[in-house]
Amino acid sequence: MAKITPLFSLKNLLVVSLALNVSLIWRAMHESEKCNFDSSFSLQQQRRSVMAGCVLKEKEHVSERTHLSLSSSPSPSPSSSLTSTDIQSQDGGERIINVDHGDPTMYEKYWQKAGDKTTIVIPGWQSLSYFSDVRNLCWFLEPEFAKEVVRLHKVVGNAITENHHIVVGTGSTQLFQAALYALSSQDASEPISSYPSITDCVKSRLYKWAGDAKRFNKDGPYIELVTSPNNPDGSVRQSVVNRSGGILVHDLAYYWPQYTSITYPADHDLMLFTVSKSTGHAGTRIGWALVKDMEVAKKMTKYIELNTIGVSKDSQLRAAKVLKVVSDSCKPSGSEDECFFEFTNHQMSTRWKQLRMAVQKSGLFSVPELPSQFCTFLGRAFEPQPAFAWLKCEQEIEDCESFLKGNKILTRSGKHFGFSPKYVRISMLDRDENYNLFVQRLSKILS
Amino acid sequence: MAKITPLFSLKNLLVVSLALNVSLIWRAMHESEKCNFDSSFSLQQQRRSVMAGCVLKEKEHVSERTHLSLSSSPSPSPSSSLTSTDIQSQDGGERIINVDHGDPTMYEKYWQKAGDKTTIVIPGWQSLSYFSDVRNLCWFLEPEFAKEVVRLHKVVGNAITENHHIVVGTGSTQLFQAALYALSSQDASEPISSYPSITDCVKSRLYKWAGDAKRFNKDGPYIELVTSPNNPDGSVRQSVVNRSGGILVHDLAYYWPQYTSITYPADHDLMLFTVSKSTGHAGTRIGWALVKDMEVAKKMTKYIELNTIGVSKDSQLRAAKVLKVVSDSCKPSGSEDECFFEFTNHQMSTRWKQLRMAVQKSGLFSVPELPSQFCTFLGRAFEPQPAFAWLKCEQEIEDCESFLKGNKILTRSGKHFGFSPKYVRISMLDRDENYNLFVQRLSKILS
Repeated sequence: MAKITPLFSLKNLLVVSLALNVSLIWRAMHESEKCNFDSSFSLQQQRRSVMAGCVLKEKEHVSERTHLSLSSSPSPSPSSSLTSTDIQSQDGGERIINVDHGDPTMYEKYWQKAGDKTTIVIPGWQSLSYFSDVRNLCWFLEPEFAKEVVRLHKVVGNAITENHHIVVGTGSTQLFQAALYALSSQDASEPISSYPSITDCVKSRLYKWAGDAKRFNKDGPYIELVTSPNNPDGSVRQSVVNRSGGILVHDLAYYWPQYTSITYPADHDLMLFTVSKSTGHAGTRIGWALVKDMEVAKKMTKYIELNTIGVSKDSQLRAAKVLKVVSDSCKPSGSEDECFFEFTNHQMSTRWKQLRMAVQKSGLFSVPELPSQFCTFLGRAFEPQPAFAWLKCEQEIEDCESFLKGNKILTRSGKHFGFSPKYVRISMLDRDENYNLFVQRLSKILS
Repeated sequence: MAKITPLFSLKNLLVVSLALNVSLIWRAMHESEKCNFDSSFSLQQQRRSVMAGCVLKEKEHVSERTHLSLSSSPSPSPSSSLTSTDIQSQDGGERIINVDHGDPTMYEKYWQKAGDKTTIVIPGWQSLSYFSDVRNLCWFLEPEFAKEVVRLHKVVGNAITENHHIVVGTGSTQLFQAALYALSSQDASEPISSYPSITDCVKSRLYKWAGDAKRFNKDGPYIELVTSPNNPDGSVRQSVVNRSGGILVHDLAYYWPQYTSITYPADHDLMLFTVSKSTGHAGTRIGWALVKDMEVAKKMTKYIELNTIGVSKDSQLRAAKVLKVVSDSCKPSGSEDECFFEFTNHQMSTRWKQLRMAVQKSGLFSVPELPSQFCTFLGRAFEPQPAFAWLKCEQEIEDCESFLKGNKILTRSGKHFGFSPKYVRISMLDRDENYNLFVQRLSKILS
């Protein structure tokens, strides 16, 4: 029995640490309220905090905002969607338009058209066990889901799955935490020795990017998150801390043909994806990681075991069905449905055109111009059309968020991303009803 | 912009703390390997670590073991289940029987009989949004699931839902972490001041329960987890640190009529439940908390937002359907199906009889005798029939786990619960095939 004692001591320390976290998160939230800073501590804020080398630079995507508001667009039944004509006659400028959070309800339209093809039927006696496949390193991974992940990447050509282990997670948020857990423990002797530098870096990166990049050029392990394509500027990014000893995590949530041109099949050590952004099924809470190193994949699996004892089987089975229908719809031989990515690429393209027109009409705003690239999947070149737009208030408007709020448009200020408050972030993924209302109202704001 | 700086400082500390956790978990696991101690860090091990007042005493349930083994019973299709006759002829004592983890596959039988009633159909365009109900404090709680939780507790009479908020979680593991997060931040000035005492207490509680109980009789906030009915002894437990300043969490995962008599409707501040143990749907990863204090419920919701941005909607909808069918089956007016709890109470009763017979026949083992109580739900008195049995090796067998392993029966040693290695824990929830094989082989082990 004496052998057990040292373990308990370590666990005790863990409790203290965990409790410290809890207290710090709480205090951070509490402080943030005092500072009138948004109190939601999202995936992206966590991501920001662990960056080494500040690889996200001044701009980063905030993929998983869950800022709540009663003024978000209501969830209509499929038949109750309003046409843009309805909206025009309906909007007297009184309704609050929320384009703050990135809820991917835009995709409902495709799935409504697809009808029963993606309907899933789960009998009551199915999936009772905790286990999905005890022979798999990731024992809670549904084989059918794994199969469809591999197939979809092959169809789209956006990632290499060979020589990668698949780890499923409750959204990419959990997978990012799992990756942090797995990678931080790589160096047994001093797993977290570089963190003080990292956090210093985080603190000051708001203003001095170049200095930070140089400052990180020293010894010690580090984890670098590369978000590509980046958001809101949609550019393709690569690692900047170019030396050994670092571990790269590639967040490829937006590396799909509706947002950006597929230019090569990504083949990184650790890549994160999520159905929330690829197919729009955010409510399923399913993400996946492609992981080269077996030990890293094992530790990520362990983290998810500790955190939630696996991942919903029902949602994995549903996600498998959805991915299958997407792959089927984009078969080279043709399908009775329109290819999912053709449809959604067209949707995004239309929305970006609408936005640019509204911006031009108003004269008070600008959005980034992005270079066109050839997409190997769609077989044509197009400009990036990111899931979030990075809108700038021109002229003497210093606080773009407040300015738009005065026009009953809720957005997220650039200052939350370490930027000037002249910028705001706009979700491009809401339902047609809400989005059309937004661009219409924006176009009417004149200097 | 200057206003943001203090927040970032706190967040930086948080990162350090998080990283410290990661490192400590890793080291704990690493150490445990060296100690030949089981390396899986389960919900229950977390629970053990945060206990104040050592309320779990010497015995605690380990509800969510996920110790993996290739020798666990295979997952047969419903039609391929073997009869006990098949098993008798099949078992030459060669097959490894795993009764270590508590996978609730026993319940498949009822759900197979129920047929299509619990089948769920989810169209592809449903549940795309992150949000379930923006008007609810727990914004990712499906209203249908909440409704069925309330109804089932009313039908069974095991908990008061009035004046409680419902928080849904990815299993009770996540809810326990959420509760810890919510409750630790209650005292703003010194939220974790009592933790050193707590951890000391945890460390020594292995041997000196009474001393620990006395030792905790001092100032400062504390969190006390009451697991009732307890496991493996099935007894009903109450708070032992009887003074103000403490917060109680009641884990009522097993307070259902198949395991124990329902004697009163529980009306505690914070109660945890899970479908894994109530209906057997562990694969859905759905648990729920009933929380009196609105601020605590809000913080628990916030934790789940930070951790996984909500809970699978698909699984919530499925769980809603399952709970509905359970309530329907137990209607006082009668139903065409047998009441779920009558059926499963009978299953458990049969299994406990089989176990006691096997123990008697062998003469080498003993199991606890537990007092019978009147169940207000079933309308009759019965002895507790817990989900795990606490088997003792009698005579000179000092290491019961190793002894049974020699007979190709995998169990979990008492030493993992701070007990003598003369005890082992046995899962009572496996499929008939595996369980029958287990009792049969046990009965043949003679002194």
